[in-house]
Amino acid sequence: MLFPYNTLFAFTESVFKSIGCPDADATLATETLLAADLRGIDSHGVARLIGYVRLWEAGRINPTPRVGVVYETPSTAVVDGDGGLGLVVAPKAMNVAIEKARVAGTGWVSVKNSNHFGIAGYHAMKALAHDMIGMAMTNASPLVAPTYSLDRLLGTNPIAVAVPAGDQPDFVADFATTTAANGKLEMLQRKQLPAPIGWIQDRDGNVSTNPNELKDGGALLPLGGETGSHKGYCLGSIVDIFSAVLSGANYGPWVPPFVAFLQPPADPVGQGIGHFFGAMRVDAFRPAAEFKAHMDNWITTFRNANAIEGHRVLIPGDPERETSQHRLLDGIPLLEPVVKDLETVGKKFGLSL
Amino acid sequence: MLFPYNTLFAFTESVFKSIGCPDADATLATETLLAADLRGIDSHGVARLIGYVRLWEAGRINPTPRVGVVYETPSTAVVDGDGGLGLVVAPKAMNVAIEKARVAGTGWVSVKNSNHFGIAGYHAMKALAHDMIGMAMTNASPLVAPTYSLDRLLGTNPIAVAVPAGDQPDFVADFATTTAANGKLEMLQRKQLPAPIGWIQDRDGNVSTNPNELKDGGALLPLGGETGSHKGYCLGSIVDIFSAVLSGANYGPWVPPFVAFLQPPADPVGQGIGHFFGAMRVDAFRPAAEFKAHMDNWITTFRNANAIEGHRVLIPGDPERETSQHRLLDGIPLLEPVVKDLETVGKKFGLSL
Repeated sequence: MLFPYNTLFAFTESVFKSIGCPDADATLATETLLAADLRGIDSHGVARLIGYVRLWEAGRINPTPRVGVVYETPSTAVVDGDGGLGLVVAPKAMNVAIEKARVAGTGWVSVKNSNHFGIAGYHAMKALAHDMIGMAMTNASPLVAPTYSLDRLLGTNPIAVAVPAGDQPDFVADFATTTAANGKLEMLQRKQLPAPIGWIQDRDGNVSTNPNELKDGGALLPLGGETGSHKGYCLGSIVDIFSAVLSGANYGPWVPPFVAFLQPPADPVGQGIGHFFGAMRVDAFRPAAEFKAHMDNWITTFRNANAIEGHRVLIPGDPERETSQHRLLDGIPLLEPVVKDLETVGKKFGLSL
Repeated sequence: MLFPYNTLFAFTESVFKSIGCPDADATLATETLLAADLRGIDSHGVARLIGYVRLWEAGRINPTPRVGVVYETPSTAVVDGDGGLGLVVAPKAMNVAIEKARVAGTGWVSVKNSNHFGIAGYHAMKALAHDMIGMAMTNASPLVAPTYSLDRLLGTNPIAVAVPAGDQPDFVADFATTTAANGKLEMLQRKQLPAPIGWIQDRDGNVSTNPNELKDGGALLPLGGETGSHKGYCLGSIVDIFSAVLSGANYGPWVPPFVAFLQPPADPVGQGIGHFFGAMRVDAFRPAAEFKAHMDNWITTFRNANAIEGHRVLIPGDPERETSQHRLLDGIPLLEPVVKDLETVGKKFGLSL
C-alpha cells in the first residue's frame, strides 16, 4: 500500500502531539522519523511509531524534555536529553555540534539520557547545508556478540558520515557496524528464509542460518562476520564508547531495550542511551570551493569505474537519494502489519490514517 | 631468528641517518617503524626499511623536510609533510592535534605531501598519555576494488582509535578497512596457501582464493567481503576523503605506490599521500577520573563475557600489547628474506646488523 508523504506526516505529527510533545518537537520528531521511510530504511521509520508510543505508555519517554548542554569546551559538549525522544534530542544536539564548528572549526557532541534517534544518516546530513562534514552514531540495545563472545554486549551501533560535494550529489555513508542490520533479519523471519552465513551465531557460538536464532540466545555478528568480525567489534565498541562512556549514558549490556515489554537493566551505569555527533567545517581545512571541486572529482572517478557485469559502482548515499526522490513523488509503501500498527495507534488517540 | 629491540633500533637509526635524516628525525622514524615490529605487525616494521630506502633512492622521499602547519582554525590544521618520511611527518602532525585539543577540547589534523607512516595505532596511542582519545588514519596505494568495481581505487586505508582507561590497559583498535590487510595476503603467497573467500576478487570480479590474484588484475575486497563489502567501501572512502580531499593530498587511484619500481601517476590531483589525526581530551566531555572508571568497567565487562569454548573475549589492543611485552624481553623474530633485505641495506651504507 502506498501512502503520500504528507498523509503520513500529518498522522505522525498528530500522534506525537497526542503523547504530549510540544508542537515544534512533534514536527521535528516527525521529520526525523519519516526521513527513514523516505530514504528506504523502512525498519526505522513509521514502522517504529507504535514502539515509541509504547515506550511513552511505559513511562520511559519524556514528551517535554529540557534538552541542554551540561558540559562544554570550545569544540565539545555533552547534551542531556532529559529522557526525551531521540528523534527530538538528536537534531538539537547536532545543532550544537554545528554551532561549535562555526566558531572552533569542528564541533563534537556526546549525548546522554536519550532514546532511539531514527536513522543516523539524517542527522549527519544536517551539516551539509553549512558546508560541513557531518557525523552521527548511536549505541543501541545489546543484540551483538563481540568476537568469541556468547553474551550480547553491543547494539548494531550505526555510523553515518555525510560529506558535501559541489555539482555532484553529496556523499552519505550510513551503516550498522554488524554484518546485517536487525531489520534485515526481521525481514527474513517474516519470509521464513535462511540468513546468509556470517550474519548470526547460535547460543553456543556456532555458525547459524536460522533467522530466529536471536530468540533462542543467539546473537548478531559484528561486521566482517566469519572472517574478520574483530574489526566490526572494534567499530561497534568505538561507537559505544563515544556515545555513552564520554557522555554518561548506559553502555554495553546496560543499554535499555527499545521494546517496551523488556525492562531496562535494574543497575544502570548511566542515563538512557547515548549518541555522538560531529561537524567539521570543510573550510577549516582548505577553501570550501576547492574541497568541493575535488569531492566532485572523487565522486565521478568512483562512479565511472569499470564495473562487474550487470552492476554499477555506487557512491554512498546514491540508493537512498534515488529512493527518496521516487517516494516523494509516488508515495511510501507500507507493509500490511505496519498499517495495522498505525491504525492501532490512531484508535488510541482518535486519529485516522 | 630473534633480534634484540636495541640492535634493530641502532641499525635502523643509522640507516635513516645514512639517507640524510637529521639525528632527531632518524630517532623519531626508528621509534615509529619499530613500533610495528614490537606490536607484531611484522609487515609494517623493519621489513619495509628497504622499501623506504628505495623510495629515497628514487628521489621520492625528502630526508630533510620542513614539516609545518599551512592552514588552521582553533581545532583544526592542515600539515604539509614536505615530501618527508611519513614516519617523521605523522608524529609531528599528531602533536599538532594534541596541542589543539589542549586548548579547544579536540584537535583534527589532515596531512598532505607525506609518505607511508608505519602503523596507525602507534600514532593514535600518542594521545593516551595526555588523557586524550587518539585517532589516526591514512590512505594508501590503490589495491582495493569498491563494491562492484573492477578497478582498484582505494588502499587498505586503516583506522586506529586509542582510548585511555584507568587501572585497565588502554583500548587500542587498529585495523585495515579491507577484509584482510595486504600483509596477510603476502604471507599466504609465500606459503602458497589459498586465501579465504571474501578477501579477494579476480580481474573479472569473480570470487577467488588465489593469493596471487592481485598480480593479474585482481583486487582486495573491502571489509565485509562477499556479504557486505559496501560497508568496508564506505569506511575506506571516509579515510581517503578525510586524509586527502581535506588536506590536498592525492586520493583514490592517484595515491602514489609504496614500491619504488612503480611510478606515481603522471597527473597527480594533490601532493603525496594523506593522513588524518584526531585528539579529544576526555575531560572535554566529563571529568577524566569518571571517564576512566567507566572505561575500566566497560573493559572488564567485555573481557569477562562468557566465551565460545576454547576462546576468550579480547579487548582491542590486547594481542599487540602482549606481543610487545614478549618481544621487548625475548627479541623480535625476523624471517630470513627480511634479514637478507636488511643486510642489503646495511652493505649500501657500510652498516652491519
